[in-house]
Amino acid sequence: MAVNLFIPSESDIHPVAGVKIGITEAGIRKANRRDLTVFELAPGTSVAGVFTTNRFRAAPVQVCEAHLATHDGIRALVINTGNANAGTGQVGLEKAQQTCKEAARLLNILPQQVLPFSTGVILEPLPMDRLLGALPAAVNDLSDNNWFNAAHSIMTTDTQPKIVSRQIQLSGKTVTLTGISKGAGMIRPNMATMLGYLATDAGIAPELLRDMCRLAADRSFNRITVDGDTSTNDSFIIMATGQSGVTVESIADPNYNTLLDALVDASRELAQKIVRDAEGATKFMTIQVDDAGSSEEALKVAYAIAHSPLVKTAFFASDPNLGRILCAIGYAGITDLDVTKLRLWLGDVLVAVDGGRNPDYQEEDGQRVMQEAEIVVRVSLGRGQLSETVYTCDFSHEYVTINADYRS
Amino acid sequence: MAVNLFIPSESDIHPVAGVKIGITEAGIRKANRRDLTVFELAPGTSVAGVFTTNRFRAAPVQVCEAHLATHDGIRALVINTGNANAGTGQVGLEKAQQTCKEAARLLNILPQQVLPFSTGVILEPLPMDRLLGALPAAVNDLSDNNWFNAAHSIMTTDTQPKIVSRQIQLSGKTVTLTGISKGAGMIRPNMATMLGYLATDAGIAPELLRDMCRLAADRSFNRITVDGDTSTNDSFIIMATGQSGVTVESIADPNYNTLLDALVDASRELAQKIVRDAEGATKFMTIQVDDAGSSEEALKVAYAIAHSPLVKTAFFASDPNLGRILCAIGYAGITDLDVTKLRLWLGDVLVAVDGGRNPDYQEEDGQRVMQEAEIVVRVSLGRGQLSETVYTCDFSHEYVTINADYRS
Repeated sequence: MAVNLFIPSESDIHPVAGVKIGITEAGIRKANRRDLTVFELAPGTSVAGVFTTNRFRAAPVQVCEAHLATHDGIRALVINTGNANAGTGQVGLEKAQQTCKEAARLLNILPQQVLPFSTGVILEPLPMDRLLGALPAAVNDLSDNNWFNAAHSIMTTDTQPKIVSRQIQLSGKTVTLTGISKGAGMIRPNMATMLGYLATDAGIAPELLRDMCRLAADRSFNRITVDGDTSTNDSFIIMATGQSGVTVESIADPNYNTLLDALVDASRELAQKIVRDAEGATKFMTIQVDDAGSSEEALKVAYAIAHSPLVKTAFFASDPNLGRILCAIGYAGITDLDVTKLRLWLGDVLVAVDGGRNPDYQEEDGQRVMQEAEIVVRVSLGRGQLSETVYTCDFSHEYVTINADYRS
Repeated sequence: MAVNLFIPSESDIHPVAGVKIGITEAGIRKANRRDLTVFELAPGTSVAGVFTTNRFRAAPVQVCEAHLATHDGIRALVINTGNANAGTGQVGLEKAQQTCKEAARLLNILPQQVLPFSTGVILEPLPMDRLLGALPAAVNDLSDNNWFNAAHSIMTTDTQPKIVSRQIQLSGKTVTLTGISKGAGMIRPNMATMLGYLATDAGIAPELLRDMCRLAADRSFNRITVDGDTSTNDSFIIMATGQSGVTVESIADPNYNTLLDALVDASRELAQKIVRDAEGATKFMTIQVDDAGSSEEALKVAYAIAHSPLVKTAFFASDPNLGRILCAIGYAGITDLDVTKLRLWLGDVLVAVDGGRNPDYQEEDGQRVMQEAEIVVRVSLGRGQLSETVYTCDFSHEYVTINADYRS
């Protein structure tokens, strides 16, 4: 059951001019579910992407990186669920290339203008006959208004579709941003997550879009974790079609900051939706680390808390067992941490000061905060001025059930 | 339910000449259970210890380090369960010192000759009245033959006592090694674990014992993990009474290697018992990483596998979902890892080669190994000659139950 995950109604989703989407059932892993999605992008669309740092980068990730480097305009995306095409060696690579080739033939473009994506089980062969056999139906389904269906058809263990859509005004014109994401387990993105797609009808110069894509990922998908497992297939893509008539060429452009903020905001919402729908999650936790000497040490502390199974199970139990948070801060790897300068808040309750329990702390105050579905844990390290925020969830019986059952 | 945890019968436990142990019920957290243990050591005993690297080092850990540095011969240990006296600031420190003072008075020694240990809940005040009130009863109980009772009385969420006892021959004389350990959750020792005590009636020069204690910890307690949570109270102590008449003064001593091997072996068994009795464990996993370029990178890979919730839940389900292991290897942090040189075995089954699935791998072979209670995962990195081995367990519903319920 997702934690406060807002699903807009289909009528509130704004199509993005220059983006068509088609969906079909390929039966890659399971019958009777939509599992194949094709994006067609208008000529002139800028596309940028960031990908997993896992050394077992999936075959489609490797092909994406190669195709994005060729500088031929990207014109299509092909996304399958049910099989990750990861840990599949040379054969897997050839299958990802074959997918691009067949999509290119159907859309009358070049294979290197196609980006392939796969998500699902690792180390199993991708059933190409089913994928290629279903591609024509997905292409036939291409239409402007298919975002809601796409959000469904890229799901795996997700219980809810994840979609954001908003409009901003730039230079007196309406600019649309619409995006989808998926992911619920194997989530500790380290470049992007598995998978996020955000499109806008603003035009953005290709080099600039690459930088903006990385900035957006670093403030959104790269700040969430469910289980600390960085996936082999993480991919986050921004597409800018330019069809709104508004184009941003450089960071000096007066619209740059507004557009970047809108992209970051939409990306963060897509990323947070993954945490809200994380496998077995019952609580959405924001871990904010302030007064750090560096962003790196703030992130070390935030991730130590966010990954501790003991902290996560205590939140599941709504038990303010706060010593577990102090313990995680203590082993986060800041070897010269002076614990007497540290302060810890649970929501608005000051829990620890001077290396120990706040003398005024009352267990019932901690208990009150722990009952909430959304909880902010705030740590002040007393070492400097830098802050970082990470989003995560609790650790429940349902997580074990899902991950002990998934696949078998 | 512990995994193949051998409990010797009481009659098979050899007392260590020069060590007396007393136990009582102090009611520190729960009534009607033994929770206070005192060791008395004969004059001339060498004592060495290694302690947690957690920056929130518990008060007793800080006092242990100070007392071990004073060079007055350590003559007693006081161990309470039910409360960790961690995250308790200056007041906690004074309580640990007060414990030493009272034990010293009862035993007619100096306070700095006492080492205090606490284990249990963090961030709660240690009830000194109960602890001090019960100390005389523990001292009255001191006897040669109390190891089995001590193994019980230091338990917290442990389901089984952990004890090893063995004898070796050195220079024609019988030398005894007997030890106990405890711990089941918050286990990723990074110096030692919470808690291990090993005594021998061999004599060992104090400086040499410090080195041997560190070597033994590095090959045992520092190679286990349950949940990646390095505790605030980890402590591992070796005591060498010299009462066997055999003394080792330097590494040039002909008995040095035999004695070191015996100490390492006993330490490793005590450490493995913690994993066998880990919270909710149903499987004991040995993660062996071979052909690494450095010990450090071998450990990175071994711990990435050992800490992955997805790997651990797959083992719980006896599901050979081996892509999850490849994924963990891929994000372990070796940025120049060439996955095409990597091989992965599950037990005796070669699962992955050349960056992908072994073409000869049959799912039923993986399934067969996964049914076992003890499983070896072996990775060859193809980068060098170094190996490291880490011991861990699976991740079950019971882990969540225990940690969502513990304390509340």
